[in-house]
Amino acid sequence: MLGRINHIAIAVPDIGKASDAYRDTLGAAVSQRQALPEHGVTVVFVELPNTKVELLEPLGETSPIAAFLAKNPDGGMHHICYEVDDILVARDRLVAAGARVLGNGDPKIGAHGKPVLFLHPKDFFGTLIELEQL
Amino acid sequence: MLGRINHIAIAVPDIGKASDAYRDTLGAAVSQRQALPEHGVTVVFVELPNTKVELLEPLGETSPIAAFLAKNPDGGMHHICYEVDDILVARDRLVAAGARVLGNGDPKIGAHGKPVLFLHPKDFFGTLIELEQL
Repeated sequence: MLGRINHIAIAVPDIGKASDAYRDTLGAAVSQRQALPEHGVTVVFVELPNTKVELLEPLGETSPIAAFLAKNPDGGMHHICYEVDDILVARDRLVAAGARVLGNGDPKIGAHGKPVLFLHPKDFFGTLIELEQL
Repeated sequence: MLGRINHIAIAVPDIGKASDAYRDTLGAAVSQRQALPEHGVTVVFVELPNTKVELLEPLGETSPIAAFLAKNPDGGMHHICYEVDDILVARDRLVAAGARVLGNGDPKIGAHGKPVLFLHPKDFFGTLIELEQL
């Protein structure tokens, strides 16, 4: 069921500093920053040869990463996104196995314009898992 | 400088349960578990099409992931490993930029039999970064 790792998301308190560090200190290709107010984040993509890291900074009053940064003020790894062929098939299989889908259980349109779901980290050993249908 | 993401490491309290969940619930290909007493971990590889996840359970009295699990008893994302062409060139560039290498600054032979270094998470926004020379 799990396909490619689409991205690893890292929440950071200052995306300018983080972007500079990934570009200048670590020598990676980083994108321009993009504000995604409807998703409550500003994002920079760190392009690696086989996948990407997404640096996320909270945007607005109700950012979905605000609570994580309050708990981890330096920042930290926030979630892993896996690609799936069919998100409804994946959702039904997961629910049948007893896993909890966050929200009302229906896919939402994610930051890349594709349907996504998030799985409860308590069901996956402390890791927040995003599934994305390409 | 940063090359492919070699793996994402996830620390878990019970590698048998975690391995079963990745195989049965998430539908991924998982390896047999391997005890690596010299590295203080038992590991299971979750093979994805473009990279891998390594599930790590502490092994022995001085496991390097024991403190992390004491703080995160459910488990959680522990580090990201990037491949580099030349680990000494990478180390010298990072140190010149003010980044801190853990330990005495010299590469160690990691769990895959290759030279590795770990960078201080405070210098990279709460993310523990491993560099590995293939």
